[in-house]
Amino acid sequence: MSFDVTPQSMSFAAPLALRSGASLGDYTLAYETYGTLNAERSNAVLVCHALNASHHVAGRYAGQPKSEGWWDNMIGPGKAVDTDRFFVIGINNLGSCFGSTGPMHVNPATGRVYGADFPVVTVEDWVDAQARLLDALGIDTLAAVMGGSLGGMQALSWTLQYPERVRHAAVIASAPNLNAENIAFNEVARRAIVTDPDFHGGHFYEHGVVPKRGLRIARMIGHITYLSDDVMNEKFGRELREGVVRYTTQDVEFQIESYLRYQGDKFSEYFDANTYLLITRALDYFDPAGGHGGDLAAALARATAKFLLVSFSTDWRFSPQRSREIVKALLDNRRSVSYAEIDAPHGHDAFLLDDVRYLGVVRAWFEGIAGELQ
Amino acid sequence: MSFDVTPQSMSFAAPLALRSGASLGDYTLAYETYGTLNAERSNAVLVCHALNASHHVAGRYAGQPKSEGWWDNMIGPGKAVDTDRFFVIGINNLGSCFGSTGPMHVNPATGRVYGADFPVVTVEDWVDAQARLLDALGIDTLAAVMGGSLGGMQALSWTLQYPERVRHAAVIASAPNLNAENIAFNEVARRAIVTDPDFHGGHFYEHGVVPKRGLRIARMIGHITYLSDDVMNEKFGRELREGVVRYTTQDVEFQIESYLRYQGDKFSEYFDANTYLLITRALDYFDPAGGHGGDLAAALARATAKFLLVSFSTDWRFSPQRSREIVKALLDNRRSVSYAEIDAPHGHDAFLLDDVRYLGVVRAWFEGIAGELQ
Repeated sequence: MSFDVTPQSMSFAAPLALRSGASLGDYTLAYETYGTLNAERSNAVLVCHALNASHHVAGRYAGQPKSEGWWDNMIGPGKAVDTDRFFVIGINNLGSCFGSTGPMHVNPATGRVYGADFPVVTVEDWVDAQARLLDALGIDTLAAVMGGSLGGMQALSWTLQYPERVRHAAVIASAPNLNAENIAFNEVARRAIVTDPDFHGGHFYEHGVVPKRGLRIARMIGHITYLSDDVMNEKFGRELREGVVRYTTQDVEFQIESYLRYQGDKFSEYFDANTYLLITRALDYFDPAGGHGGDLAAALARATAKFLLVSFSTDWRFSPQRSREIVKALLDNRRSVSYAEIDAPHGHDAFLLDDVRYLGVVRAWFEGIAGELQ
Repeated sequence: MSFDVTPQSMSFAAPLALRSGASLGDYTLAYETYGTLNAERSNAVLVCHALNASHHVAGRYAGQPKSEGWWDNMIGPGKAVDTDRFFVIGINNLGSCFGSTGPMHVNPATGRVYGADFPVVTVEDWVDAQARLLDALGIDTLAAVMGGSLGGMQALSWTLQYPERVRHAAVIASAPNLNAENIAFNEVARRAIVTDPDFHGGHFYEHGVVPKRGLRIARMIGHITYLSDDVMNEKFGRELREGVVRYTTQDVEFQIESYLRYQGDKFSEYFDANTYLLITRALDYFDPAGGHGGDLAAALARATAKFLLVSFSTDWRFSPQRSREIVKALLDNRRSVSYAEIDAPHGHDAFLLDDVRYLGVVRAWFEGIAGELQ
């Protein structure tokens, strides 16, 4: 059972200084909240989103069937993150295409749509913007910040940028940075978009076209890396769509092809091409150890939160090894860390799916936090 | 030290019946030979090539520096496959773009360039065409057939289609079929090519253009899957091309991006787009167990050759597990099989590289074959 929610938005006039040296003025953040902020303002949980998600984390929009938020299985009344006890906030990141200011909006400085001129944003910039929104909501300290994948990077960055404002952090299916292979996949996806003739250097809006070819390819690559080899073999294997080989190089032969084409088509209908570039770049750039000569333990010394790390055995995009690097660096700093490596077949996607042990781990951890509130 | 070689070609007037039901008439095969066929005609070794290779397996072209064949480290006088003892043959497959009849040639039936109308060819069709060329060379029985990756599939298929003509088969870094993930990567590459506006449904030749955008993307994806995670991290890691972050979504930031773009650009200058579709489809379709309800042991019962299987520990495209499936199916049939799993860091690419243990295994195996000749 889900619950009805209403999206909100908040505008900010003061410019936000970005890591690139640029700044963003007059921007809006879309967000949602679930549950009630307690009198002590101590039960707030910020949920950070990954590439293809938004502030719509949980609940559904009234009268819209199948409009459940992307982590609705995790968050809600009586769920692992219990909105009867916590005040949960979801914020759409700057540069995204789901309501917050992004490349498809008008740059107030020029009167033209930003397009490719939208400033490059980093995980750290997003966290700064999220902190401002919390300021406006009167939330000084978070009971917890949590996120999966790129969302986990934001949760980790919160503990470094605002250590005094975060009591707990859940970093799920994430990594301390992207490795070369991760960057390589992002780069292929970006090249597919940028070299699509309909991209027009990122200013396709004024041409009335969308670089759908590139977006389709980007999404197909993404889907391959989200799934494990095992789950692909189990779901699709070598199954033929028509049951017999038709000997064609351009038409669909295998079910896996049909699935990927469908996913790519669907994505190209709603996702913004410049957003794709911006968000994959934010992923590429995130590297807290970078400023410490690669020493992750030194980088995480600032963090004072209590941590939960979760990884999934078949996730080859953000493998358990990468989570263990974070765990080790935190333990080197004698921080409190719970770590669960979930044996799940679904690859990187597992962090969004129902897995009894995974949801149980998160539930137990949040019950501990709720206990501290009383 | 390499040696000088000269490419040859042979034309065939009799139509070749293909698995698709189509047939190919008036076709030419480019090939090369190294070493001398002995009086008994018993020392011939056929080398089958993979996606981006050709009949130019070893040696170099006179006056052309850096023109060594793709397996020149493996094959030549005194090398693992010793051309002082063996007569080695390399044949460019039908549909390729390195000299044999392919989509860029004129269809004698229509007087137009084949383009997308070039018939779909399978591993089995290639083996049939190779057998005809051996017929013309007066070679009834091969001392050995060998190949890596897609070439290994051809070697395996030889033992099933012409068991009486193959005494030994070396199947290296290969698989009994592609899994769903393999097919998925092929499909993304094909979509990138087919949706490139310069592809023109496969008839780009008459438009005087080449779908370079698609070929670049295809090659970039290929390169990621040829390399291991480890070797990518070691060679490129997160190294920045300019040493500092420049905050750009469209320009190169990381060395790995620069490498992939370079490889993509180079490939798009010489590789044919229709060939890419044809060869990846041949990979997709290969599945000897498919006609036996998925029972690989039943499928391989026809094979009578002695086998060498080699896999590489970090090859995630054609993992050791896939080679072990072939080994098991052969052993279930009580066939003679040598199997080496080489602990090498280079991923799928390892089969083309110098690895002392790998080359030693192949050398020892061929020395055994040479011993049988005397």
